[in-house]
Amino acid sequence: MNKIGTHILLIDCKDAQGLVCAVTSALSNYSCNITANGEYVDHSNNHFYMRTEFHGDIKEADLMLELSKNLPADSNIKLKKKLKKKIVIMATKEHHCLGDILLKNHFNELNAEVLCVIANHDNLQDLVEKFNIPFYCISHENLSREEHDEVLLKKIKPLNPDYIILAKYMRILSPKFVEEFKCSIINIHHSFLPAFIGANPYLQAYERGVKIIGATGHFVSNELDAGPIIAQSTIEINHTLSVEDIISRGREIEKSVLNKSMKLAFEDKIFVRDNKTIIFE
Amino acid sequence: MNKIGTHILLIDCKDAQGLVCAVTSALSNYSCNITANGEYVDHSNNHFYMRTEFHGDIKEADLMLELSKNLPADSNIKLKKKLKKKIVIMATKEHHCLGDILLKNHFNELNAEVLCVIANHDNLQDLVEKFNIPFYCISHENLSREEHDEVLLKKIKPLNPDYIILAKYMRILSPKFVEEFKCSIINIHHSFLPAFIGANPYLQAYERGVKIIGATGHFVSNELDAGPIIAQSTIEINHTLSVEDIISRGREIEKSVLNKSMKLAFEDKIFVRDNKTIIFE
Amino acid sequence: MNKIGTHILLIDCKDAQGLVCAVTSALSNYSCNITANGEYVDHSNNHFYMRTEFHGDIKEADLMLELSKNLPADSNIKLKKKLKKKIVIMATKEHHCLGDILLKNHFNELNAEVLCVIANHDNLQDLVEKFNIPFYCISHENLSREEHDEVLLKKIKPLNPDYIILAKYMRILSPKFVEEFKCSIINIHHSFLPAFIGANPYLQAYERGVKIIGATGHFVSNELDAGPIIAQSTIEINHTLSVEDIISRGREIEKSVLNKSMKLAFEDKIFVRDNKTIIFE
Amino acid sequence: MNKIGTHILLIDCKDAQGLVCAVTSALSNYSCNITANGEYVDHSNNHFYMRTEFHGDIKEADLMLELSKNLPADSNIKLKKKLKKKIVIMATKEHHCLGDILLKNHFNELNAEVLCVIANHDNLQDLVEKFNIPFYCISHENLSREEHDEVLLKKIKPLNPDYIILAKYMRILSPKFVEEFKCSIINIHHSFLPAFIGANPYLQAYERGVKIIGATGHFVSNELDAGPIIAQSTIEINHTLSVEDIISRGREIEKSVLNKSMKLAFEDKIFVRDNKTIIFE
Repeated sequence: MNKIGTHILLIDCKDAQGLVCAVTSALSNYSCNITANGEYVDHSNNHFYMRTEFHGDIKEADLMLELSKNLPADSNIKLKKKLKKKIVIMATKEHHCLGDILLKNHFNELNAEVLCVIANHDNLQDLVEKFNIPFYCISHENLSREEHDEVLLKKIKPLNPDYIILAKYMRILSPKFVEEFKCSIINIHHSFLPAFIGANPYLQAYERGVKIIGATGHFVSNELDAGPIIAQSTIEINHTLSVEDIISRGREIEKSVLNKSMKLAFEDKIFVRDNKTIIFE
Repeated sequence: MNKIGTHILLIDCKDAQGLVCAVTSALSNYSCNITANGEYVDHSNNHFYMRTEFHGDIKEADLMLELSKNLPADSNIKLKKKLKKKIVIMATKEHHCLGDILLKNHFNELNAEVLCVIANHDNLQDLVEKFNIPFYCISHENLSREEHDEVLLKKIKPLNPDYIILAKYMRILSPKFVEEFKCSIINIHHSFLPAFIGANPYLQAYERGVKIIGATGHFVSNELDAGPIIAQSTIEINHTLSVEDIISRGREIEKSVLNKSMKLAFEDKIFVRDNKTIIFE
Repeated sequence: MNKIGTHILLIDCKDAQGLVCAVTSALSNYSCNITANGEYVDHSNNHFYMRTEFHGDIKEADLMLELSKNLPADSNIKLKKKLKKKIVIMATKEHHCLGDILLKNHFNELNAEVLCVIANHDNLQDLVEKFNIPFYCISHENLSREEHDEVLLKKIKPLNPDYIILAKYMRILSPKFVEEFKCSIINIHHSFLPAFIGANPYLQAYERGVKIIGATGHFVSNELDAGPIIAQSTIEINHTLSVEDIISRGREIEKSVLNKSMKLAFEDKIFVRDNKTIIFE
Repeated sequence: MNKIGTHILLIDCKDAQGLVCAVTSALSNYSCNITANGEYVDHSNNHFYMRTEFHGDIKEADLMLELSKNLPADSNIKLKKKLKKKIVIMATKEHHCLGDILLKNHFNELNAEVLCVIANHDNLQDLVEKFNIPFYCISHENLSREEHDEVLLKKIKPLNPDYIILAKYMRILSPKFVEEFKCSIINIHHSFLPAFIGANPYLQAYERGVKIIGATGHFVSNELDAGPIIAQSTIEINHTLSVEDIISRGREIEKSVLNKSMKLAFEDKIFVRDNKTIIFE
């Protein structure tokens, strides 16, 4: 039996009796070997989620047909080949999240293919090109947000990325941009959301006198820093740290939380519903 | 649909195709509603684990028969009613883990019924009796380990507990005692095992100059502090702490790790195989 | 040389050259042995803080005079005997923080003397009286906030406590009450402030879909949940937890953060300035 | 007053009355402004430690003379200019710790100057040279440990580094090498020491079935993985992770703990005594 599945099946629907049985029977009938399986029932919404990795020489259309026969009419069924995701990285001036991604990508540890890096400043060009990744500087100067995002879209859409990673991209994206890549834009925010939304969260943290700082990986929605949260973590700080010290320590946790968030997304482990994530870890 | 299952089904067997399907079909045929389900395949040992909570008006013998027909011959199948576990607590002189359990038990938050507390000293009697729990002091003085454990067994066996909780019971149990309650004795050890096995782990930690201390909840086996680990956690310390300070801080993490370990056991979420635990959280 | 100081000296003033020298000289002249010493300069406010534990057979008035001669005119100088603090605990209906304090107090591990417990409900009376601590139920029913707090003050002021511990006291205190016990009321809030201020923070956390929950120990000020923060901590959660599960896990961290906050206060390790704490750990 | 000191004074000696006063007086007499100060008395060994950052236009010899007059005869007194440390990095084949250091160094965030990278394999040459840092491959093949270390020493000694960073250098260093750079070689070990000493700690962790993994930054001594510990941290794992998964997650914590260890060393915040560290954070 192959240990690693070649396909991933993501199903969610209204909860009902016999759903697991229905799915696993269909896969069994098609001689698929399930290598990993997870289900979750959200009892407060009476909703069923299932993520299945399997191995099999299937005709996708046939399996989809079989599944849709066995499952409720309004089920969401996604069948994916287990492949490296294609990603576009957006940045501004800070290098730490970007550098961490570039290193992992260079050594084939990212489970993704970096198509290019786009920044609204040019100081990271040198770094990106060291790793032979295309770098585009698309400045926002003299452009409205909508105009700038239009230029970005023109560059990104033809690349057809699976995910856009905001590796400390310090601008708000326009609704049109967000709409184009729904639940596909991952941002790292440098606070434990919902605290310290918006600009300068570390300064806000310093001024409030908190004893922890944190980072939050989340999908981007049209409400600022309010999209579905994927991962969060915190570290302890104390009064002796200046804002600069806090920023420096925060970088480490930003990298780690963004890394975790990407990993979960790239492995198709996240469902999103009602601004929350259901994650099969 | 009832949200909370009334039964728990625990299955493990050699991995094979169609196991999830086989189990869920059997439950479906008996009109059981699955309320929570988890599976895990240990690919390195080619072994399958499944834990299912369900709700249904079943005849246990019939369901077991049906399941055993559908599953491989050497499968381990356990069908349990979802009930409060009955536990015996053993202690020596320290009150913090015991007190935490007594409080939770008193306010009905333990998911268990404390049958009694047995200690080899008597200083905790006053505390235990405040909460109207029977307390037995069974001193080890003038007794060999085997003799002492024999007296303990005579007291405990008739009570037929589901679990024995060593809430800082500072003596090694004899093989005979351990054998009687295989995978049913939960100990809290005050170090991040496998470091600092045996006596005075906090002193060992102090002398080694570590920067973290920890606690480990584990099932008791016949090798000292080497049984299957259920839960572990650590906290940071520094050079300014005396051994007494370390002991004091350690107490908090001991309570929390023991609490987590008990909770997992009492909810039948733990499988044990080859000195390791598989935990369905 | 005695290892444990008998006195604690707390000084803060505008930063200047030679302050440490001035203080340590004065103590040296009085034949005091410094057993622990900490200083901190807040460079952004140009302010100096110093905490010194020492041992010596001193006349307090003389030492204060000597210190005030050597230090800037507007210095804050506090000289304290190292004694157990006297505390009043206020609660509502939840037992977990209160129970943890009562246990520690009973076994002489609190570094404080619990004068009494006051609650606005009576369900905790049985627990408190088990430990031979006076319990007063002062109901808020049919009273305005100001009237209720007036009754509380009448009970508490004659007891002259060093600290009032809000062990899950679920009511907002009136400005008059807060003013009476400035920087002496310690509250445990069940979120990582400044997120989830006010009522039902765990429900807020559940609805936001955060991946961590936390607790914050802070001094009470007149702005709700916005006083100087003493300690904070977080734990990871996930989508499978119901609000009840979150509340249950949160209790453990509330206990631990309140315990840490009390410990720091009772050891005179906290300075407060501009709604922030400077803590000598 | 300058906020950042230009010098660091490190003193340790037998504890005695008046030591803080003696040091601060001497600095005061030399018109030095203390910008940060910390003391610690190890009461169990009756030993005093003091770390002082100050700003002043001093003659080092004069200040040292003054200090040595005021302090006990056998005091250790070190006076250092606050400068970037010079470091040599040693690696084997793994890139993650090295890459993190190279990135920080490239963007001037390391508080150190990387003189060169030396590895016993050549696969990291490409990465290192991207950042214009000299790379030397010094293979151990066909050499005894002593011969290999001799070649290393010949390369390293003329560079006169302040610290040697073992960024996953997977070989044991000979006593002669260690002796040359006493308390100046920092290693990152991929376990929570003293657990899982030696080779393949993640495999050891997997086989023991622990629920946490960790990393330890420590100075290298002649006993394997037993030198003075600088920093440690752990993260939670569970039974679903393969050894490869554990290795992958471990990398993140290795980077973070090595980074913390280096930072403390480069800021002269560490004293070492009796195989333990005293750290002024």
